[in-house]
Amino acid sequence: MPARSTMEHNLQDTISLLSCTPAALNALLRDLPETWTLRNEGENTWSAFDVVGHLIHAERTSWLPRVKIVLQFHQTRTFDAFDRWGHVRESQGKSLGQLLDEFARVRSENLSELRALNLRQKDFELRGRHPALGTATLSELLAAWAGHDLTHLHQISRIMAHQYREAVGPWSRYLGVLQCAGHGSP
Amino acid sequence: MPARSTMEHNLQDTISLLSCTPAALNALLRDLPETWTLRNEGENTWSAFDVVGHLIHAERTSWLPRVKIVLQFHQTRTFDAFDRWGHVRESQGKSLGQLLDEFARVRSENLSELRALNLRQKDFELRGRHPALGTATLSELLAAWAGHDLTHLHQISRIMAHQYREAVGPWSRYLGVLQCAGHGSP
Repeated sequence: MPARSTMEHNLQDTISLLSCTPAALNALLRDLPETWTLRNEGENTWSAFDVVGHLIHAERTSWLPRVKIVLQFHQTRTFDAFDRWGHVRESQGKSLGQLLDEFARVRSENLSELRALNLRQKDFELRGRHPALGTATLSELLAAWAGHDLTHLHQISRIMAHQYREAVGPWSRYLGVLQCAGHGSP
Repeated sequence: MPARSTMEHNLQDTISLLSCTPAALNALLRDLPETWTLRNEGENTWSAFDVVGHLIHAERTSWLPRVKIVLQFHQTRTFDAFDRWGHVRESQGKSLGQLLDEFARVRSENLSELRALNLRQKDFELRGRHPALGTATLSELLAAWAGHDLTHLHQISRIMAHQYREAVGPWSRYLGVLQCAGHGSP
């Protein structure tokens, strides 16, 4: 095994990242024409608009609710399965600006609630039960919440770059984002 | 060949995207602890700090200067080679906040200059000569400028996710960004 060079999970680092994502997506997406934000990568893929809807849905039904299940039930209650298409109905009829506002609000509320839990070191080792991944610690769940933001920022940059795949001509060789296959994500 | 489903290059769409990137990086990175922004993906790779330095260097020495070379010399003057490590010395001793300010300023100046060129449809078909990629149109160069922003946003999200590669435990399977190999980019 190589020496550990990556970061151990740290609650303050996780909260710092989770705090920045809504403003970053807002700055990136709010003023863009829809030609950037409503296009996807092909059938059964998501647009940037869809991704923001998904982040809201995960905020409401997945990350913080699962933190609370771990704290209350440990491994005795399996997390509810997450609906990867659950955002579709909720986003219907809304503008991207509305979704960005909603994401900022629900994230801010969730982080307030997370801080109020006053998690201690011993809590981080508590285990919960994921319906597909098996048992995992609270620390891993919190780190995954932050990693999930980064996965979707990564995805949004790839979705948008895809729109210029042909337009960039010979530069496509040099633009790493155009080589990204999506990795079975979201 | 499949029907074209991606966007044709459009100057306003390109400028919209180029306008948003500095604010998006600012919102994402400025308030993060250095543990997120100064770590890289291993030897000879870049941190988020390095990437912002690179974007400034490209702004000064590559994209707009090449636009002007195409307009003035067409294919008769090959673009100057770009120094992929040219940002290192320029970034030394600066804080990430200073780099983010500098990127916002130089990008804003360059977009003012780009707008003032009053490019017309016929200009977009003009060809320039890239030292490695051969000839390319002005339209392709402008689209690549936007695609380059997205490549580096994609890279920054991957660099940061890498720091939590172990911390996320079993979720690493679900986080697409952790499967991304970097694609020989930047």
